[in-house]
Amino acid sequence: MLLNSPSVERLIEAFRRLPGVGKRTAERYALHLLGAPAEDAAALSDSVRRAREAIRKCSVCRNLTESDPCTVCSDARRDQSVVCVVEQPSGAMAIERGGSYRGVYHVLHGALSPLEGVGPDELEMGALFRRLKGGTVHEIIAATNATAEGEATALYLARQAPAGVKVTRIAHGVPMGGGLEYTDQGTLAHAIDGRTKMS
Amino acid sequence: MLLNSPSVERLIEAFRRLPGVGKRTAERYALHLLGAPAEDAAALSDSVRRAREAIRKCSVCRNLTESDPCTVCSDARRDQSVVCVVEQPSGAMAIERGGSYRGVYHVLHGALSPLEGVGPDELEMGALFRRLKGGTVHEIIAATNATAEGEATALYLARQAPAGVKVTRIAHGVPMGGGLEYTDQGTLAHAIDGRTKMS
Repeated sequence: MLLNSPSVERLIEAFRRLPGVGKRTAERYALHLLGAPAEDAAALSDSVRRAREAIRKCSVCRNLTESDPCTVCSDARRDQSVVCVVEQPSGAMAIERGGSYRGVYHVLHGALSPLEGVGPDELEMGALFRRLKGGTVHEIIAATNATAEGEATALYLARQAPAGVKVTRIAHGVPMGGGLEYTDQGTLAHAIDGRTKMS
Repeated sequence: MLLNSPSVERLIEAFRRLPGVGKRTAERYALHLLGAPAEDAAALSDSVRRAREAIRKCSVCRNLTESDPCTVCSDARRDQSVVCVVEQPSGAMAIERGGSYRGVYHVLHGALSPLEGVGPDELEMGALFRRLKGGTVHEIIAATNATAEGEATALYLARQAPAGVKVTRIAHGVPMGGGLEYTDQGTLAHAIDGRTKMS
């Protein structure tokens, strides 16, 4: 019982709900905040509340955003005919960091997982298919994760997409800079199956 | 620029001030909170503020506490004649977890560091020496860290303690379960110097 304080215990519990934070790390965060200048604690408390209030889902792509539509959806230079479908906002951000993708996104906020009771209605699938009905979109890139759930979701997209919308899947293979000896068998099999002709 | 949102940027900056949290981890925490149920975000925001309001320094030992004096200082079963002097609240907690120490604590909230401008006045040293004047304390255990600053602080305590107060230093040596081959030279030298007769 750290400090025998119910309010500190509640703080530790709140920190433990963050991804990858265990008891010791949560205690370290709590102790740091209690010892830090009052402004630091106030800044964290206020910014959590304010960010949560300011952020909503984009009405078009369902990505998290402060402005609606989001900066990607409202950017006239982006190609609105190609939609990259990702599971989470972090996926869209990872692709944005690359800086070379010029299309737009759709964030499902999850992947199909019948075992956990996640069907299409639990995801932002309806919003995606309403977008596809508009006729602007010619291709959706299934950029869901390379997991069983991600593959199932990609397969669902391929089967349910309306005629006239091409569904593609991001390539799986050896990561850039990755040695074959450090690459798992599944990835290697994908890399060989997905081989392309050298010019 | 994650989400192009100033409020999210501020949240990430607030998380980055936590110990050991870099940009990526702060982004992960922020994204999790934005996607989590609103109650989770409110719980973190409120608990930071409330814990910070509820916690003060114990008027006796300067440890962080919700009640004053703290539960250790006000526990009649603890030996008030032995004071374990630590740098941080986390040090006192680590010793409390052991469960065998029956004395009380004094938290300095730092260690002497002339290079960083930390002298006795920047620490809770005045409060300690006022305690020692009372005549109740017979021994102080210098449990400051095994660093240059911690050793300097221990030395300062040994030199400044009033007559009649014994100053001891926690033992340095091979950690329990630690193999000699994984122990650094400084620790090994301490372990040999501090050897004790086997019964």
